Amino acid sequence: MTAPRRSQTVTGAAVDAIKAYIRDAHLRPGDALPTEAELCDKLGYSRSSVREAVRILSALDIVVVRHGHGTYVSDMSLQPLVNGLVFRTVLAARESLAFLGHVVDAREALDLSLAAELTGAVDAATLSELEDIVDQMRSQVAQGRPFTDEDQRFHQLLLSGVDNTLIKELSQAFWQVHAEVMPLLEMEVVAVENRDRTVSAHQEIIDALRAEDRTRFRAAIRSHYAPLRDVISQSS
Amino acid sequence: MTAPRRSQTVTGAAVDAIKAYIRDAHLRPGDALPTEAELCDKLGYSRSSVREAVRILSALDIVVVRHGHGTYVSDMSLQPLVNGLVFRTVLAARESLAFLGHVVDAREALDLSLAAELTGAVDAATLSELEDIVDQMRSQVAQGRPFTDEDQRFHQLLLSGVDNTLIKELSQAFWQVHAEVMPLLEMEVVAVENRDRTVSAHQEIIDALRAEDRTRFRAAIRSHYAPLRDVISQSS
Repeated sequence: MTAPRRSQTVTGAAVDAIKAYIRDAHLRPGDALPTEAELCDKLGYSRSSVREAVRILSALDIVVVRHGHGTYVSDMSLQPLVNGLVFRTVLAARESLAFLGHVVDAREALDLSLAAELTGAVDAATLSELEDIVDQMRSQVAQGRPFTDEDQRFHQLLLSGVDNTLIKELSQAFWQVHAEVMPLLEMEVVAVENRDRTVSAHQEIIDALRAEDRTRFRAAIRSHYAPLRDVISQSS
Repeated sequence: MTAPRRSQTVTGAAVDAIKAYIRDAHLRPGDALPTEAELCDKLGYSRSSVREAVRILSALDIVVVRHGHGTYVSDMSLQPLVNGLVFRTVLAARESLAFLGHVVDAREALDLSLAAELTGAVDAATLSELEDIVDQMRSQVAQGRPFTDEDQRFHQLLLSGVDNTLIKELSQAFWQVHAEVMPLLEMEVVAVENRDRTVSAHQEIIDALRAEDRTRFRAAIRSHYAPLRDVISQSS
């Protein structure tokens, strides 16, 4: 592979210069960047290089551009990772089901790693909120409807108190990859015949937490992912 | 938050159009994209929009531009994730050590999830290569030198036979985040006083695999990350 085009090098250097500026000025998520003109002055790049660098940083979710307000340091979410993985999964066509299986394994690995932290640490109010969500799942199932929103809310709430922000965000990112890929493969996030089993598994997660039983929690997590694996292996 | 600038919307739409083109034409990693002029014709965007969209897709590692050759579908690595996490960790200043701790936890969670798959499945040739790497670590330590390269090779080889490409890539991505952040915080990847313990932990991972003992493997993985956690907690 030979050197990239010169114009790309300049943009790449402008990207690095803006990142270095953010770091050296100790800017934090939510802080405003200087205007485009000021960045040109400070960093010695042309207007067009700075503009393009800002667009790249925006695509990477490092900055966010608010029309009429300015450019701000973003909270650097894992959204670009989600977009990349969804695209990669869908591209893989024949292998996409296998890759979805990998996403499920990764979600399970992360959830299992939280067993010690979660067991005994989820308060009564949260447990009762989780119960409410499972009730809503049941009523969706009774009406023959999917419960993707309820599922997302359940997992977000379950992890809400987790200290490790990286594991929390990754888990949510993989939930999202899963939820976005399934419809693209013309599959439901939880297939009709697996809905009852999946609702029961969510209930069992709550029961294990209430019993403060780590082994039971781990078993419940495994049961929770089993129907998702079945759908994937039956389709491939 | 109001709507983004019009120029950004056009670039964003061109990014989506190129992604849709890659998908619909069933292009795979390594396949060439049409030329810039052809993309303009096919997708109905201006030359400058297509050029900018390609740069954004290149920053997201969805395409790779080879000077004088053309633009190709990339293998969509987790490199943008690594860059984003390194930047985010370094930015976080005071919280960066806590975030590094989260990275270590995530690495451990992924390694532990592979216990069942790895135990009994690593062949004799690989085990003996892993032994060689640990011998090289020992000789580095004897000479008072760090063993970052050896550490990377050990973990890459350990996971080389793992079926789950996502977990494998994530584990390597987090290794890289760790290795890139430590020097930025003016810390060694493995501190001098922890080098002997860390080498022994690598040896114990091999011994557990040789004994095909899953519980011992899990314990060895935990011992392996303990010194890294000590360094982080002692520094914060």
